[in-house]
Amino acid sequence: MPKIVDHEQRREEIAQVACQVVAEYGFRQATIARIARTAGYTTGMVAHYYDSKQDIILAALRLILKRIEERLQRRQGEGDADLLAVLSEALALDKQRFIECAFWMAFWGQVSADKTLKRLNAWVHREYMRLFERCFATHWPRSSRWPKPRREQALRSVVTFINGLTASAVTSPADWPAATQIAQLRLQLELLQQWAEG
Amino acid sequence: MPKIVDHEQRREEIAQVACQVVAEYGFRQATIARIARTAGYTTGMVAHYYDSKQDIILAALRLILKRIEERLQRRQGEGDADLLAVLSEALALDKQRFIECAFWMAFWGQVSADKTLKRLNAWVHREYMRLFERCFATHWPRSSRWPKPRREQALRSVVTFINGLTASAVTSPADWPAATQIAQLRLQLELLQQWAEG
Repeated sequence: MPKIVDHEQRREEIAQVACQVVAEYGFRQATIARIARTAGYTTGMVAHYYDSKQDIILAALRLILKRIEERLQRRQGEGDADLLAVLSEALALDKQRFIECAFWMAFWGQVSADKTLKRLNAWVHREYMRLFERCFATHWPRSSRWPKPRREQALRSVVTFINGLTASAVTSPADWPAATQIAQLRLQLELLQQWAEG
Repeated sequence: MPKIVDHEQRREEIAQVACQVVAEYGFRQATIARIARTAGYTTGMVAHYYDSKQDIILAALRLILKRIEERLQRRQGEGDADLLAVLSEALALDKQRFIECAFWMAFWGQVSADKTLKRLNAWVHREYMRLFERCFATHWPRSSRWPKPRREQALRSVVTFINGLTASAVTSPADWPAATQIAQLRLQLELLQQWAEG
């Protein structure tokens, strides 16, 4: 009987390897050939699943968003999960999440120089904001009673802060162990809550 | 009489062009040849001033730090300059500062994939932290009365937030006009001050 290949799974596997390769070698040097080699496939095999590097990058971005979303939803099951615990899923706290954050940084570093990536980023950015908005609604239910402009400013502030933590943790990992990242995010959330309700 | 060339000035001019080229084309595609062409010099002429691309990047980093420092010091002359006005000098509020911020992003995007850049970044990071520490001391004199751990956490929080604003403004400029960046930083400083003193 011929071996049955799960094409969806293989596509995802290649996207996951692309994340690692971008995180490790940077954006430009993450060529299709290198991604294929790292995954243990031929370039032709990868070409069977993706038309271009752009395609793979898009799949990698979708995969990271999906992963974050899954982690957030798993947390949602825990009734008492607070916003800090949930948002921590987006921080570079372990190896897998460090790779994801390093991928973001490599991607961001290319956005201003590349029109296609700029469009891609606009889409990612909207998805990302929606994701965090849902987190606020579910895990910070009191935020629904804040005046809308306050809620929006708090949301912007949290996303800005998480982006800053991503940049710091990826570029200066020794200065940003997990506990420090969490402590800083905890303070940020506490300050915003006091402000929004005070 | 032979034309007198100010070599220091020319070195700086090349570093400035390198900032622009990195911001516009990304890190990898900012080759010496492209930097030379943009500056209107031959590659050989640029090689007369810099041994390698690494060398130019280091000069560009120094130049940006020097510029930020100069802008901060100019503000220091104004007795009533508050910390917000001073720190705003580090944000992507106009074209020149947008180029500097886009350069940071391109640089950060390469750091995790390149050991030499990692070392360079460790140095830049220390310089940058010192610069902001001096800003706190001069323009937020009340911060000197805060307990040291609070002052350090506030400093970390401000730098994280500014890094996040840099990432947001460079990758989603339409969402981050100057007024929005300043409003978010103002809120951040107010919240930290209340916390540190409350």
